[in-house]
Amino acid sequence: MPKLPIIHSRSEHEPAGIFKVEKLELEFSNGARRTFERLNSRGLATVVVVPMVDDETVLLVREYAAGLHHYELGLVTGRLEAGESVLEGAQRELQEEAGFAARSLVEINQLSLVPAYMTHISHVILARDLYPDKLEGDEPEPLELVHWPLADLGRLVQRADCTEGRSIAALYIARDYLQQENK
Amino acid sequence: MPKLPIIHSRSEHEPAGIFKVEKLELEFSNGARRTFERLNSRGLATVVVVPMVDDETVLLVREYAAGLHHYELGLVTGRLEAGESVLEGAQRELQEEAGFAARSLVEINQLSLVPAYMTHISHVILARDLYPDKLEGDEPEPLELVHWPLADLGRLVQRADCTEGRSIAALYIARDYLQQENK
Repeated sequence: MPKLPIIHSRSEHEPAGIFKVEKLELEFSNGARRTFERLNSRGLATVVVVPMVDDETVLLVREYAAGLHHYELGLVTGRLEAGESVLEGAQRELQEEAGFAARSLVEINQLSLVPAYMTHISHVILARDLYPDKLEGDEPEPLELVHWPLADLGRLVQRADCTEGRSIAALYIARDYLQQENK
Repeated sequence: MPKLPIIHSRSEHEPAGIFKVEKLELEFSNGARRTFERLNSRGLATVVVVPMVDDETVLLVREYAAGLHHYELGLVTGRLEAGESVLEGAQRELQEEAGFAARSLVEINQLSLVPAYMTHISHVILARDLYPDKLEGDEPEPLELVHWPLADLGRLVQRADCTEGRSIAALYIARDYLQQENK
C-alpha cells in the first residue's frame, strides 16, 4: 500500500450553496507536488435505497434530474438531514419519494462518487417488508413508481433514462447480496 | 413519461477551477417552482476504461484519491482533452495510467454521476488485446497495477479501498457484456 501524500494546505474556494470547493496542495511520497481541487460535501452523506417489493422485484422511481435535464429511472436517493441516522434517513426518503416505509432496513455497502475529487459518501440500504406510508417531502411533483425484476438489470442499464453509476452499482450489489443470502 | 419542467433562467455561480456551479429556476408541469443548483462539467466528458488482461481478468489501478484521501483500487479513468474522441481519450488514459494500449476499444455504456445535480457523463470503454505502451501523463507517481478476476466482483466491492459507484457499475456492465458475447 503506497504512503499517503501530505496535505500542505487546504483552503475553501468560492463556496457556492451546497458545494464547497477546496484546493489541496499535495506532496506525494516521492516528493512530487501537485495542486488538486476537490468538492467537499460538508460531512453530509447520502442514502441510496434499494426497496424490494418481493424477493425478485425492486421498486424504482422516475424523477426529474436537473443535471441531465431528463427524467431518470433509478433508486430512491437523498441527502441525510443533520442529526439523522443513516437508517432514519433511508426510511424518510423512501416515505417521501415512494410513499412506502420498510420494516427491514440493512446497510449493505458504502459507495463514493468520484473519490479522486469528491468527499461524498453514499450508504446503500436494502429495504424490505414494505408497507404504504407516505410522508410529504419537498418534491415538486409526485414520482412515478416502476417495478423492475432484479434478474433483468442488463436491460435496465442499457436504457437511456437509467444512467446513474452509483444506483446501478447499488442494484448489482443488492442482487449479489440477496443471492448470497439464499445460498 | 412526464413533461420536462421549463428552465426559466440559468446563471453561472461562482465558477471555481474545473467546477462551474449553475442555479436553475425551474417550473414543473404542475406549476410548482423550485430553484435547483447543479454542477456543470463544461462539456468535457470522462472515460472509464475496463482493460481486460484475458477473457476473465480485469486490470485495476491503485491511485491516490484526494476526495477520500486514500488509495483507491479501481478502473482507469480520466477526462477527455479538447478535440479528442472518446476512444482516443480511453487509449491515452490507459497508456498514461496503466502503461498499456489496446488493439480493441469498444464503448459499451454511458453513465452519469448524480444526474440530479451533475451534468457529467462518463463513457464506459471495454479495452481488449493489450500490449505494453507507456505514455507520460501528469500522474505524480506511477500507479500500482492489480489483476482481478471478473468472476469475483462480490469480494472486490466489499473492500474498503474499492468505493467508486461508477467504476463498480462499469465492471458489472462489462461482465454482463462479455457473458452475452460468449452466449
